[in-house]
Order: sequence, then C-alpha cells, then structure tokens
Amino acid sequence: MTLAGVLAPIPTPIDARDDIDLRRLRAALEKWRTTRLAGFVVLGSNGEAALLSEEESDEVIGAAREIVPRDRVMLVGSGRESTQATIHATRRAASLGADAALVRTPGFFKSQMTTEGFVRHYRAVADASPIPVLLYNFTAVTGVNLLSDAVLQLAAHPNIVGMKESGGDVGKIAELVAVATGANHRFSVLAGSGGTFYPSLCVGASGGILAVACVAPDVCVRIFEMTRQGRHSEARVLQEQLAPLAKLLGSVYGVPGLKAALQIAGIDVGQPRAPLLPASEAAVAAIGAEVAALHGDAVDCRSRT
Amino acid sequence: MTLAGVLAPIPTPIDARDDIDLRRLRAALEKWRTTRLAGFVVLGSNGEAALLSEEESDEVIGAAREIVPRDRVMLVGSGRESTQATIHATRRAASLGADAALVRTPGFFKSQMTTEGFVRHYRAVADASPIPVLLYNFTAVTGVNLLSDAVLQLAAHPNIVGMKESGGDVGKIAELVAVATGANHRFSVLAGSGGTFYPSLCVGASGGILAVACVAPDVCVRIFEMTRQGRHSEARVLQEQLAPLAKLLGSVYGVPGLKAALQIAGIDVGQPRAPLLPASEAAVAAIGAEVAALHGDAVDCRSRT
Amino acid sequence: MTLAGVLAPIPTPIDARDDIDLRRLRAALEKWRTTRLAGFVVLGSNGEAALLSEEESDEVIGAAREIVPRDRVMLVGSGRESTQATIHATRRAASLGADAALVRTPGFFKSQMTTEGFVRHYRAVADASPIPVLLYNFTAVTGVNLLSDAVLQLAAHPNIVGMKESGGDVGKIAELVAVATGANHRFSVLAGSGGTFYPSLCVGASGGILAVACVAPDVCVRIFEMTRQGRHSEARVLQEQLAPLAKLLGSVYGVPGLKAALQIAGIDVGQPRAPLLPASEAAVAAIGAEVAALHGDAVDCRSRT
Amino acid sequence: MTLAGVLAPIPTPIDARDDIDLRRLRAALEKWRTTRLAGFVVLGSNGEAALLSEEESDEVIGAAREIVPRDRVMLVGSGRESTQATIHATRRAASLGADAALVRTPGFFKSQMTTEGFVRHYRAVADASPIPVLLYNFTAVTGVNLLSDAVLQLAAHPNIVGMKESGGDVGKIAELVAVATGANHRFSVLAGSGGTFYPSLCVGASGGILAVACVAPDVCVRIFEMTRQGRHSEARVLQEQLAPLAKLLGSVYGVPGLKAALQIAGIDVGQPRAPLLPASEAAVAAIGAEVAALHGDAVDCRSRT
Repeated sequence: MTLAGVLAPIPTPIDARDDIDLRRLRAALEKWRTTRLAGFVVLGSNGEAALLSEEESDEVIGAAREIVPRDRVMLVGSGRESTQATIHATRRAASLGADAALVRTPGFFKSQMTTEGFVRHYRAVADASPIPVLLYNFTAVTGVNLLSDAVLQLAAHPNIVGMKESGGDVGKIAELVAVATGANHRFSVLAGSGGTFYPSLCVGASGGILAVACVAPDVCVRIFEMTRQGRHSEARVLQEQLAPLAKLLGSVYGVPGLKAALQIAGIDVGQPRAPLLPASEAAVAAIGAEVAALHGDAVDCRSRT
Repeated sequence: MTLAGVLAPIPTPIDARDDIDLRRLRAALEKWRTTRLAGFVVLGSNGEAALLSEEESDEVIGAAREIVPRDRVMLVGSGRESTQATIHATRRAASLGADAALVRTPGFFKSQMTTEGFVRHYRAVADASPIPVLLYNFTAVTGVNLLSDAVLQLAAHPNIVGMKESGGDVGKIAELVAVATGANHRFSVLAGSGGTFYPSLCVGASGGILAVACVAPDVCVRIFEMTRQGRHSEARVLQEQLAPLAKLLGSVYGVPGLKAALQIAGIDVGQPRAPLLPASEAAVAAIGAEVAALHGDAVDCRSRT
Repeated sequence: MTLAGVLAPIPTPIDARDDIDLRRLRAALEKWRTTRLAGFVVLGSNGEAALLSEEESDEVIGAAREIVPRDRVMLVGSGRESTQATIHATRRAASLGADAALVRTPGFFKSQMTTEGFVRHYRAVADASPIPVLLYNFTAVTGVNLLSDAVLQLAAHPNIVGMKESGGDVGKIAELVAVATGANHRFSVLAGSGGTFYPSLCVGASGGILAVACVAPDVCVRIFEMTRQGRHSEARVLQEQLAPLAKLLGSVYGVPGLKAALQIAGIDVGQPRAPLLPASEAAVAAIGAEVAALHGDAVDCRSRT
Repeated sequence: MTLAGVLAPIPTPIDARDDIDLRRLRAALEKWRTTRLAGFVVLGSNGEAALLSEEESDEVIGAAREIVPRDRVMLVGSGRESTQATIHATRRAASLGADAALVRTPGFFKSQMTTEGFVRHYRAVADASPIPVLLYNFTAVTGVNLLSDAVLQLAAHPNIVGMKESGGDVGKIAELVAVATGANHRFSVLAGSGGTFYPSLCVGASGGILAVACVAPDVCVRIFEMTRQGRHSEARVLQEQLAPLAKLLGSVYGVPGLKAALQIAGIDVGQPRAPLLPASEAAVAAIGAEVAALHGDAVDCRSRT
C-alpha cells in the first residue's frame, strides 16, 4: 500500500436532533466521489469521532464504504485513549471495509506520554490490526507530540505504512520524511495542514489529508499534480490562493467552519454536535468571502454535480 | 448539598490481563472507609476514566457504591466529549448511586471551546441530571481552561453545586471563590492539587479532592481541620511535609505514580492500563522515599487495617 | 539584613518629551515616604529599567536615595543580560546608595539558560557586589524560570539574602521557602504578585514587592500585619478586595496601567516610555472602578498628603 | 535596495578575559569574504548583541565594515527595548557604515506589545533612520510575535524594506510574502531558520539570514541557487543534509553551539560571553559529527583559505 495524493477527511453529518445523519453522509460522498480525490478519511478529527459513540462510529463507517468505490482509499480513524479500545475499534473498522486505520495518539495523560509509551501503544495496535496502520499526530487537539525518535522506531514495523502530521510545521515534515525513509522506504508522510500543503510536498510529503480538500478538492489536487510535475511557480500561486481558506477551516473555526464552508459550497452536512457550536455569522461571512475568492475552484464540488 | 473536607479520587484497579479488577477495588475501599475522608471520587482522571469503556464504568460505579457507606459522599466522574454522552453517563451514574457528578470540561476541539460553549454544555448537563453537578477544570489534561466568567454564569444554576479546580493556581481558586460566592452561596470550590491544599483553604476553598489523599488521608484531613481551627502554623508545616509527595503523584508521575505509592502504602490497585506504563524503578524509589519521609502519616491506610 | 513587609516597586516618571523626570520622582517619593511601606524598589521591571540608559539609571538611583530615608530599605534593580554588565550596574547602584541589589535573571538566550548558567551568573555577581544580592524571577517578562534547584545552591552564598518570585504561583513560593530555609535561615522569599500576596504569606513568604502597593500601600501593609497577627479571616477579606486591582496592574495592563492608577490616586508619574503606549480609555475606566471599589483604602497615598 | 541570497549572522568573538576581540573578528571576516555569501549581519542575536555595551557595539560595527567590501551587504542589528535607544543605535550604525538596520522587536513587556505598539515603534525608527530598516521577528528569544497585520501596515513605509522571520514556520513565511507583496513589491522576506531554508524559498522568501551559513556557506548558497534555477530535487537533498546541523546551531545549542562549530570548521571566534556557557563536550561531539557528515561542504570556509 502506497499512499499518495489528496485525501479528504470528511465531516460526519449531524441532524437537527443531534443524531448522525447517514442519508446526508451518502449524498455528500456521492458528490465527493465525482472529484479527483485519491481517497477519504472517515472518522478523523474533522469527522467529530471524539463526539460519537462506538455504535455510531460503526454505522458511519459502513455507510461510507457503501459509497466510496474500491479504487479510492478509505482510511478510518480508530484511535482511542486506551490501547485495548484502539485495537477493538481498528478491528471493527477493518471488518467494515476500511483500507487502513488512521490512529491518532492517545493524549489524555499528557505528562506520561513518552516515546516509550507511544512505541508500545502503536506496536500493540499494529500487531493486532488486520489492516495497515498510519500514525497520526495532531498536537493542537491532543496536546502531545509524536516525535521523530518514536517514528523512527515505528516506521520499521511491517504493518505501519505511514503518518499524518497535522501540525503544519514543514521542518517536522521534512524530518519525518528523512527519518522514515531511512527506516522503511514504503513509509508515506502525509501533510495534515492545508496552509502548508505545497511546501510539505516540496520537502517530501507524498500527499495530504486536508480539511480544505472537502471544500476545494480540485485546487488541492492541482497543487499536488503541479508539484509532482515540477511546475513549482504555478503550485505556489495556487497554494497562496488556498491558504486563507485553509486557515479558517483549521485553527480558526475548526469543524464548525468546515461544515459552514460545505453548506456554502453546496454540500449539506448539517451542524456540529454539541458542545461544538455552529459557526457564528461573522465566521460564515469570513468563510464565504474566501470561498468566493477562490472563484470557480472552491465550488468545484457543486459545479460537477 | 454542601461539599467540604477531603475527598480521595480513587484509582481503578487493573489486573495483569489489563481488565478492571472489582475485587481489588472493594478491598481498597474497605481500607479507605476506615479513614476520616469525607468522601470519594470514582472515575475521575485518576480513576483512568478516559481508558474505560462505558460498560466498565458502570461496573466500577456499582461496585464502589456497595462499599462506600451512605454517610460518605461518592462523586462520580461522568464527563465525556459530547454533551449527549455526558448526559447519558451522568444519568447512569445517578441510577447506580452517585451522590453527585463531577463533570470535566470537554477539551478535544480546544480552539473552539469558548465560554459560551462551556456554559451551554454544562447547563444542558445540569438540566438533565437527576443529581447535583460539579464543574471540573483540569487544564493539564484537557488543554482547555474554564474561566471565572463561565463559572459566574454557571454557579447560578440550581443544580450546579460546586467546582473542582485542579490547576494548583491559588489565585484562580481565590477568584473562583469570590465569583461563585457572589452568584450562589452554596457553591463549593474544591482544590484539586495537593501541593497547594493549605493555601487554597486559606483563600476560601471548602475542601480538596486530592490524589495524595489516597495515600496519606490523615495528613490531608489534619491540614483541613487545623486550618478550620485557625491553627495555621501547624497546617503550614504539614503542608510542607505533604508537598513533595503530592508533586510526585501529580504532574511528575501521574496515575502510574499513584498506583505505585499505594502499593508501597499497602493498598494493591494493580498497574495502570496501557498506554500508561507502570512507574519506573526510579519513580518507585523517589516515591518510596517521600512516603517514608512522611513517617507514620503516609502509611495511615495500612496502619489502620 | 532581613527583608520583611511590603515594598513598592516604583515606576520611573517619564515626561512629555520621553525623558526621565526626576522632579516628579522626588515628589512621588515624598508621598510614598509618608506611608508605612517597609521600603522601595527602584528600577525594577515596573521602573521600566529595560527602557533606560545606564546614565539615566544612575540619575534615578541618586535622586531616589535623596528622598528615601535610611530607615527604609531601598533596593535597586541591577540585572542586565551579561554577567559583566550586571556586575557593573550593581557596583554603581551600591555606590549610589542602594541597600541591596535586585537582580533579575538574564533571559535573552532562553534555550541556553540552564541551572548551571544561572548559578554561575549569580555567584559571580554576588562575589563582586559590595551590597547584598536578591535573586529575581519574573518568567512572564524574561521567558525563563529560576527553579528551586538553582535557588538551593544560591541560597547558601553569604551575599545572597533573598529572592523575589513574581509568578504568583503559591506552590512555587512554598517550595522556595522550604528549599531556602534548609540552605540559609536568613534567606527571605518575597512575593511579587499582589493577586496572591496573602496566600504567599501563609506559606512562608516574608513579605512582598507589589506593584499594587504603589497605589494602595495601606491595604497591602494591613494584609501583611493581619497575617502576622493570625487574623487570617480579615487578611483574606482584604486580599479579596485587593485582587482585582492587582490583576489589572499586573498581567492585564502592566506599567501603563500602574501609571494610570497612580494618576487616579493623585500621584503624577507621567506616561510610559515608548514603545509602551499609555493606558487606553477602557483601561483607565476599569482601573478607576477598582480604585474606587477599594474606597478610602486605595487613595491612602492622596489622603495622607 | 533588494535583499536576496544568503547572509551570515556572524558571531562576535570574545576573548578569554570576556572582552570583545576585534582581531579575531577581522580574521574571521577575511575568511567569510572569500565565500559567495551575499552579505553579513553584524550584531544580530547570534552576534550576542544583547550582551554588549553600546561602546562595544560601535567598535564591532566599525571593525566589521573595514573588512566587509562595499559590494556585500552589511546589515547591523540595532534593536533595543526602548524606541529612543533603537533610534540612537540605528543612527550610529548608519554612521559607521551599515547598509541597513535589522531591528528586532522589543519584547520585555510582553503582555503590552500589541500590533499598535509595534507599528508605532517601527514607524518612529524608520522615520528617523538614515538607512533602510528591516523588521526582525524572533519569538524564541523575544517571547513576542510580530504578526502579519502589523507587517501589512509597516511594509507600506518607504524606509522599511524587508523582514527577517526566524521562527521556521513556513506557513508564516508564506503569509508574510503574500501580505507584504500586496503592500510593497520591494519588500523582501528573509528566512531566519536554516532547518526550513529550502521550503521557505519555495513559498517566496527572497533569501535567508542563517546561523548555519557561517559554518557551511557554500551549501546554503547552493540551496538558494538551485531553487532559483528550478532544480528542486537537488535543493531538497542538500536541505536534508543541512537540517541536522542547522537544528543544533539553532534551538538546541544556540550561540555556544555556533562558536563551537566554527572552531571545528577552522574559524576561531572564541567562547560565548557569560552568562552563556561554552558548549559542553557532548554538544561539541554532536556538532562535530554533523559537520563531518556534511563532508567537504561544511568545511568550505577552511578549505578555501
């Protein structure tokens, strides 16, 4: 398994009664499957996985796999706080059709999460998982940092095939590429921050899992392709156009912002689940302006359906 | 309901197969009930609640209530990331005998957790809960901070009776006391950090929920009583003796340290659940030295049984 | 030399041409000397020492010593980034009449400031200083933290007589008291944060160097005395009244806030030096409200003159 | 004035008596001038400017200008904490031959340093300066962050020609390029972190001011040239080779590490000034290994003389 290109970490539609909405999920995926996205992440951070029950999680995975064709990669977020719960969730995701598991670091007991702890956790999960495992570091939500010394040890595991690094720190991406390449030439480093997608590709990322790719998949795919083709100046211009929206959907407005942006782009995924609040009017206006600034690009989801 | 005195946030025993161990839980509670602790917190952060399934959580609550006598307060940690899961957990805790719910802040989507979000979350939980609710702020594990402007709004709710502040910031404790007293004279502020228990009492905390109270309950109770009686110099001396152990069981070695300290003090609660690792030899030695330095005080659990 | 009681870290008056204003400095000190403050700090952080030239610093020290009577302690801030500049400034301060030097940690090269570096720096300064030296830790401005392992080593030096800890962390104050008492029973720990003055005294601080004491000296002195006399409840009430103003003059509005508060209290020390901006109208209003809330207490500077 | 290419922020030699050593400075510059470096920064952070007196600063500038030929850019660090001291230092630097001033943000009063404060400070300096001014943001040492909204306002000033951003955050570099280009097409953004030099160039930086360029100037210049020529794969490989040494000379070992690396590379600049300690043996070994790993590249200073 080699992971490359642009994947979208899709949100989980929530209806007005605060329940998951599988009908809207299927409809959204029908739109996204018309794009050139290489694949999807179901139940990532943007999928509000932390706010779903285990039963809901299974339903979402099953419904998504019905729509995501087999020639697109479907990753499933299966990280939990305990090692055993992570193993259970990973096995269930595999049985429901996930191609690989994206396992975020546990992070509740921050002061105790050492490299040794991370290495044992991921090895236990990878040993038990019937599908390939990707490491997933997202310090802004977990409060812990999976460092390159841990990744160096884990990249040698035959069932660990890559990593998503969401921090937007291009130097860290470069370091991970260097470290992992030494340990395992099949190890893919995927950027998780749309604001630094192009420079992450420059330093060796093999692709990206980008919230903004849900809204502007074609722009993201073109940045990827242009960089691959050595058309750096064009890629850089597109990146500069993409960055403001990526920032709004990331650290600024998060999942509520992503759901609002999709509404604007013609994909209805409802509201975030409580305690998340819907994006404010000011947020919607700011996001709308950036979507409009991307011209036809950002509405490529809508324009194609 | 007025909460005062010293409560112990008990760990959840885990056996060698990484399963919860209700037999050890009952045995430990039998020892703790011989002390002068005012009550217990089941499934707090120290109870590794984040590492347990919903089913395990229910079993632990039920088993604890069998042993904790009705004249001692039994709080149950029922915070989850989503509002609805928190409500479900709180209702189940109530039906299993909890006297009140200790609801930690949700914290996964850190950048989106505003005062407005916290206020809506806690109001929804308090409205739905059949038992009184305590707010619970523990920034070192959640990465978010429940500020006094939110507490000011929430303290006025008839079903919100207090707050545990674990940060060890005595100025914040004082501010919460001032703020909450204005809103609701029945609102109790409980200190969550053993290293600053005595000065927290000085500024108006009505008690403490202290990990170190699992190991040295009598020292903690004496600090509380002496401060109440105006015997400040004696309280300060005891606090100075307690502080090093409190620090080791808090930010330094966390739950693994607490479990190691209890083993030394004659209460067997097994090991932490993975991905937590057992305390290292160096940690056990450091903790053992501090337990010994407390002389007979720290072994009061053992000496009474 | 034993340091105890309340000292005021006085601001340096700046005139409309951005020059130091010794006339206003003398006038202000004439007012402060009528209070029961135990002493003064000239050229501390609140004295905008970082914004003055070496020549201006000397003029300020000389002018202050003319007014500060010999029966009040006059500390002078003489910390610089290099060890040799700190030694020069300390010697000049001594020759201009300082009773002791308050030496803030160097902090420019943050990642390189280890305990070993701090210990060597302070020993070199203390060896070369003709007057006693106090350590001074203020992490919020320096970005570095002088930890108790360094203080343990330094407290044994015969010419190091105490420490100002400005962090407001009462647990750290308690730890310093414990550590330093073991090394040197003459070592004084002074609190630098008015918001936690009373609990700092509870855990063993021998006094405070408090910005808010420039504005409300009598309240601060009464908190000190009441705590000494075991009148804890009264001290706590006063502390609760003092805390909001202390917060505004500390982390919220800083030196511009202090200068605005003094203007309100009838002591004209001009504006802050650029790049500091004068307090905004909103800041002045908030500060004015808190000064008024302290009733006659906060205006004790004015009422006595 | 357009700034492009690689500049070296040279250290200030200090002799065994802790004095500045102009002889060693001249000798080092004689070596560096044989390289293809576009220019030099005298008295930057790496020049220990914070540890020098005003008189020493002037001597260093004068001595450097004697050796730095007129066809190489010589920037001088002239940032101070007060606006007026910064103006004085900038004027003196100009009179001593500086081509432009590199003015780091003031940062002592961190909580008060707003965008408005920064804008007023830099405008006053740029208005008064006879030479062009570059903004300089280095959060790791100053503890404050010059954000793009301030840069947007400042880039429009006719005497502000660029900015050095030392944070290594490539997304910030990209944002600055976008912001500044809109305001002023002559505005140069220079990267300050060797670990992300190549990706910074990808997103539009016009060059770099890199500590590691003192040790490995030719590698840095080749990365710059290759990127300009569209030889991205080669540039990336060189960057990957450079990164470990850049990291050691940056956040890990700082100025002491840089001075040790230069000793290894055959340029004697003495030791750091106290309170900085010389690099430890372990640091020297780690740095030596990385210098050796760069093969002939890192010793290009030595090999050319």
